[in-house]
Amino acid sequence: MSSLFQHLRIHQVFGANTNVGKTIFTTSLVRASALRGKKVFYLKPVSTGPLDDADDHHVNRYTTKYSSLITAECLFRYDEPVSPHLAVKLRDVESTRQPPSDATFIDSVANRIRIYAKSGNAPAHMYLETAGGVHSPTLSGTSQADCYRPLFLPTVLVGDSQLGGISTTISSYESLLLRGYTVDAVVLFHDDYYRNWEYLKPYFAERGVFLATVDHPPGKLADPLQDFASTDQYYESITSVESEGIRSVVDHLDKCHHHRLQDLESMPRRALDSIWWPFVQHGLVQGDKDVNVIDSAYADFFSVTNKNALADRSSTQSVLSPQYDGSASWWTQTFGHAHPSLTMAAAKASGRYGHVMFPQAVHLPALKLAERLLNGPGKGWASRAFFSDNGSTGMEVAIKMALRAFTTRQQHNLNNEEKKELGILGLKGSYHGDTIGAMDACEEGIYTCEWHESKGFWFDPPTVGIKDGEVLINIPASLASFSHSKTVKAESIAWVYEVENRINTPLARAYAMYVTRALEALNQRGGPVLAALVIEPILMGAGGMLFVDPLFQRVLVDTVRGRRSGASHRWSGLPVIFDEVFVGLNRIGVESTGPLLGVYPDISVNAKVLTGGLIPLAVTLTSQSIFEAFLSDSKAEALLHGHSYTAHPIGCEVANETLSMLDKLALSDEWIAAQGSWVKENGDQSPVWSLWDPNFVGEVSKLPQVKEVMALGSVLSIKVEDKAAGYTSQSAQTLFQPLYEPKAPDGILSSAPGGAPFGIHYRTLGDVAYFMTSLNTSVSVIRSIEDRIWETLTST
Amino acid sequence: MSSLFQHLRIHQVFGANTNVGKTIFTTSLVRASALRGKKVFYLKPVSTGPLDDADDHHVNRYTTKYSSLITAECLFRYDEPVSPHLAVKLRDVESTRQPPSDATFIDSVANRIRIYAKSGNAPAHMYLETAGGVHSPTLSGTSQADCYRPLFLPTVLVGDSQLGGISTTISSYESLLLRGYTVDAVVLFHDDYYRNWEYLKPYFAERGVFLATVDHPPGKLADPLQDFASTDQYYESITSVESEGIRSVVDHLDKCHHHRLQDLESMPRRALDSIWWPFVQHGLVQGDKDVNVIDSAYADFFSVTNKNALADRSSTQSVLSPQYDGSASWWTQTFGHAHPSLTMAAAKASGRYGHVMFPQAVHLPALKLAERLLNGPGKGWASRAFFSDNGSTGMEVAIKMALRAFTTRQQHNLNNEEKKELGILGLKGSYHGDTIGAMDACEEGIYTCEWHESKGFWFDPPTVGIKDGEVLINIPASLASFSHSKTVKAESIAWVYEVENRINTPLARAYAMYVTRALEALNQRGGPVLAALVIEPILMGAGGMLFVDPLFQRVLVDTVRGRRSGASHRWSGLPVIFDEVFVGLNRIGVESTGPLLGVYPDISVNAKVLTGGLIPLAVTLTSQSIFEAFLSDSKAEALLHGHSYTAHPIGCEVANETLSMLDKLALSDEWIAAQGSWVKENGDQSPVWSLWDPNFVGEVSKLPQVKEVMALGSVLSIKVEDKAAGYTSQSAQTLFQPLYEPKAPDGILSSAPGGAPFGIHYRTLGDVAYFMTSLNTSVSVIRSIEDRIWETLTST
Repeated sequence: MSSLFQHLRIHQVFGANTNVGKTIFTTSLVRASALRGKKVFYLKPVSTGPLDDADDHHVNRYTTKYSSLITAECLFRYDEPVSPHLAVKLRDVESTRQPPSDATFIDSVANRIRIYAKSGNAPAHMYLETAGGVHSPTLSGTSQADCYRPLFLPTVLVGDSQLGGISTTISSYESLLLRGYTVDAVVLFHDDYYRNWEYLKPYFAERGVFLATVDHPPGKLADPLQDFASTDQYYESITSVESEGIRSVVDHLDKCHHHRLQDLESMPRRALDSIWWPFVQHGLVQGDKDVNVIDSAYADFFSVTNKNALADRSSTQSVLSPQYDGSASWWTQTFGHAHPSLTMAAAKASGRYGHVMFPQAVHLPALKLAERLLNGPGKGWASRAFFSDNGSTGMEVAIKMALRAFTTRQQHNLNNEEKKELGILGLKGSYHGDTIGAMDACEEGIYTCEWHESKGFWFDPPTVGIKDGEVLINIPASLASFSHSKTVKAESIAWVYEVENRINTPLARAYAMYVTRALEALNQRGGPVLAALVIEPILMGAGGMLFVDPLFQRVLVDTVRGRRSGASHRWSGLPVIFDEVFVGLNRIGVESTGPLLGVYPDISVNAKVLTGGLIPLAVTLTSQSIFEAFLSDSKAEALLHGHSYTAHPIGCEVANETLSMLDKLALSDEWIAAQGSWVKENGDQSPVWSLWDPNFVGEVSKLPQVKEVMALGSVLSIKVEDKAAGYTSQSAQTLFQPLYEPKAPDGILSSAPGGAPFGIHYRTLGDVAYFMTSLNTSVSVIRSIEDRIWETLTST
Repeated sequence: MSSLFQHLRIHQVFGANTNVGKTIFTTSLVRASALRGKKVFYLKPVSTGPLDDADDHHVNRYTTKYSSLITAECLFRYDEPVSPHLAVKLRDVESTRQPPSDATFIDSVANRIRIYAKSGNAPAHMYLETAGGVHSPTLSGTSQADCYRPLFLPTVLVGDSQLGGISTTISSYESLLLRGYTVDAVVLFHDDYYRNWEYLKPYFAERGVFLATVDHPPGKLADPLQDFASTDQYYESITSVESEGIRSVVDHLDKCHHHRLQDLESMPRRALDSIWWPFVQHGLVQGDKDVNVIDSAYADFFSVTNKNALADRSSTQSVLSPQYDGSASWWTQTFGHAHPSLTMAAAKASGRYGHVMFPQAVHLPALKLAERLLNGPGKGWASRAFFSDNGSTGMEVAIKMALRAFTTRQQHNLNNEEKKELGILGLKGSYHGDTIGAMDACEEGIYTCEWHESKGFWFDPPTVGIKDGEVLINIPASLASFSHSKTVKAESIAWVYEVENRINTPLARAYAMYVTRALEALNQRGGPVLAALVIEPILMGAGGMLFVDPLFQRVLVDTVRGRRSGASHRWSGLPVIFDEVFVGLNRIGVESTGPLLGVYPDISVNAKVLTGGLIPLAVTLTSQSIFEAFLSDSKAEALLHGHSYTAHPIGCEVANETLSMLDKLALSDEWIAAQGSWVKENGDQSPVWSLWDPNFVGEVSKLPQVKEVMALGSVLSIKVEDKAAGYTSQSAQTLFQPLYEPKAPDGILSSAPGGAPFGIHYRTLGDVAYFMTSLNTSVSVIRSIEDRIWETLTST
């Protein structure tokens, strides 16, 4: 991950093309830095071509007079003057050697940088020269710009001064922008015929990018000594002017470096002075040290300020450290942060549409998404997709739909007051978002505010958890008199989720009786008229990561629907809403929960994973029967709900890309391996599985501080022993506190890209700590997170 | 705007660089199309270099045997072999000729395409060859990719087969994606040494892009006849293979063309089968013809299916027409659709962060946005920025803040039931979004749904409008007994908005008395306890484009606040919320409404324009005093409101870019000119102004069908004479129906990019039709919209 040091200012040098003078500019930068009296590191990770022409040789040759200050090094050298991926092939064609993977490559580069940084804390400069153009292939065949992205180094782009060079320079710049790079400067030769600089100078100035030019180098001379002298003289001349040309670039890069550090230092204070955070009691924030400064993010990691390193002016440590995003940024991350495919999808839709008005209109991204969802989570029951902006608004839409369907069915026997008082049937611990309508569908509790008015009735649900290696169903007190026990031992996780096999068990009958009796009692005591069943199927998130016994939810749905002809897609009894904002689209392994429960909703909501962890978008799916409740010839009876950016093309296109990528992931070796580790005892496939290791989960459940543990898909939930349970408990937060500290296994590189020690950012819900992965987090990262959790739990 | 014809399949050919064989590939495409028996048009809009080498000469030379089928043409020719912008300078250096602007240039290209298309309806192909690389400068000095964007032609990219060509090819492709282009095929030379094709083939296959290669052309021969023969033989050979090479490209492009038309044809039906639109009564949608198919968008125009042209198989008209986005896509568009600067901002943030978790964290895009807003609309009163996803959620946050501030001030003298029943003071016709909490702050009315429960009291406001050239303040009946008249004639628009001058008038005293009496009466009859004043300052949008007399809102704020020491930023009386979602950030000319009203809110909300019309984001600004009402040592007392994507970096970065661009726009000639046309009679600057022409507004107000008209900033509102006023009225919709028809002034090009006839998409609110521009809509477009409106109003 990002390398940024106080004493060592590093820039990577990208080229707009090959043969644009990358080595010449880097050499002159090295020389100009040395002229400023700085220690200079020149790193050329990969060099192709004859040894005599090699870049590090070139640098060494033309900086001899400053050799005490300069270290030049190449990590991988190939003789063929072709693209690195071909050079590897040509050299290694007869051997069985594999070229280094990007991960290994970046680990060695990052490690080398750390070694340079530790070599002293005097002010120093470093230039890392990439190979070819911004998208020239790496040794393993990916692209320079993608490969170096984890290090997130500030960038100098060497522009192209030849015919066509305006285009290649701007395109390269855009490719760098698409990876989030900060381009501090563009440099190119001052060509008086094509005059590209004349065009590019105002172009980049408008974009806040510094541009400098230098003269072309002299032509090659036949006599080596003369050639050396003329080239040396050239370097001398272009680095001699005090405040222009290359020296001005060096000074500008220093300024950028200084500004970067200043920003990181000032950000906590500025944030504390201007921002009001969600779900944060500012009265408990003690000061700068409590603010997590996120400089960038990549894959599963944030790159955050290491406050100790930043505060210590003599530190040779990186002031940025990787931090594992243990809540997948509030359950959104799907493929990790800053995935180029999602960026491209967003850029493409932005370039084609921006945003366009949606009522009575259609554009391809929205249409494809609607069709894909109806054919995915909506398959077999849904016929309509309604777009909104986030899970909370998607749920408000769902509730409006269900209430209208219910009141329409009542043939207008309800007056306005009664309509306002219609109730939701749900489960205790439910959470559907923070807008007041979504809150009103939940019990009053921790998330309550002034206008929150719980409308409905909520059951205490039985939940699933693992303790001491045993899978248990915990029966709440209110239900225990029907089930005749407080816990039911399950055969296995798989057994719990094979709901069809459990539908005729005594427990199922106890659930049904409990539900029926409770609803009758509610009715008798004049409780609210219930208009819809609303559940988070399988796993209730914000309420405390409650893994509800799926059998209970199945029985509940069957009960409130009453008898229903199998083939009909018309709703009966109460309309049923599945809030799949959190659990949907493979967050817990399955695309949707209907197949697990064996019943389908009349309305469902997807968000979060929907856009792969990039931007807000929600889709409410619904059956034709619900849709028809709004049909009439009166506009006033339409669903009058919309947001300015309804079905914004960027969100839809990113969602389409996400769903395509999920389809591929479902066939990946990683998922097949994870599914294989959760097979049933007889070797058959289990209906549920997790990216977390079942043995790890089992062992954790045996620890004395752990009350219960459970894992599905990318979610691991650990409930700790604590007398003061609930949201305001600090027990889980306190227990896992050591995870925040950046660490790496003794003496070896960490599994974070670049191998630096990393901390873990995790979120708790009172006595529950949960850990989440992206859906494509690598096995090595997951294993190392498990190790860190294990270490923390066993060392206390 | 987009050109797409049934019989004429057009592709533009972009190059990854100069000298990649663009002309050779285009020539072979032309030849292969002719071999398929198609009529072929080769269009090279700009050619630089010696006439003998010119591309159209080349094409003509090597396609003589098909000359009956082929038309080759160049529109602008320059002799110098340099970039077009330089060629223009070199040639025109001594003349005073200006190079054609992009707009003029695109008009001539589009016009030429229309002429070709009309020349017959037999199946034909056209290849438009661009100059240089994708970002090579145009004659006027912008870039090829940006300049051709309005035509939105499907694209063939000629890749680069040389060393470095992998990088330039991919970067060029990405630059095209950033403009939304669909790249149907990549073609490049089959180079056996660098083997770029070997790398690029799977690369593009993974992205769904067809790639084909052909052999290098033979070297140039000294003898012209031999050279011709060898080159001709080369073309013969690369176009001779039936299903490979260039022929396969031609067939693939045909397939893409067919698929494109099929999509456009099927989209209405598919939309009607899968989508549930916001604010649409599907029961009133009669069928395919009612669905607006938006293929792309650019600047102020959608590119929509022209259903007549699409249905008529023998039509030679474009099946896509420009359609002016007359509601600025629900009041969001700021710089028009698909502005590259916003795309870049989005891409950059996506590449650097994706999305990252926000509670107790900070990232630069959010921090900069918070600081910028506090220093802009929040200047002088706000100290905190709270992020959410859209106007509705931003208002829910604002309401939660105000209610808590109020209850805290009440020293806990309110019980839970009383807190639920706290009321909002507002104006009739208010609208704050569709989530239920936001709805509850408004009166029941058209937007009502089951759970909507109006909480509060709403005044009938006096409004401003122009009729028969006179500016009138319309006093509602309930207020007339205080003001002693039903209308007050204003001196001018400027006079109305110079609130400070009116604060001691009899009308101001009448307003104050009315407000005081009504609140006392409410109190006496046991009305709700009012906890906050919530207004849309100056202009209430969804309620019917009501231009509220600013004096009334000023008096209202002063009254509910009671006496307040001038310097204090602590709230007093009731906390005041300004919902500036619609009016804020220059939509009505001013950045915020506080300076106009002479009072500032305690809480305000911005959205819509905030992200320039690209993606959802909202910010709620608040004073320190409101913030402090939530401070304690209990997490439960924090503002427990957040969305998964809170402060998503893409939204924040796009907002920062938007605000920078607005700052520049404020200094633009266009704004200064528009402001100049709204000066006061004495020539002094008016506090308000509009992009609409004041004379036009005045003249419209004199038409008999027009009840009232008003304009501020980018908003023009026309209320039509109609007995059945209100939201369900169809009068405005019916009156302006002719605007939908694509039209251009007789015999000349329209002001839409490319000059094609355009329709106008407009939205109505019952008896009110409103027309909106982006904040940078060109004067020529605005004048032509005015002409169309005038024509429609005077021809009925």
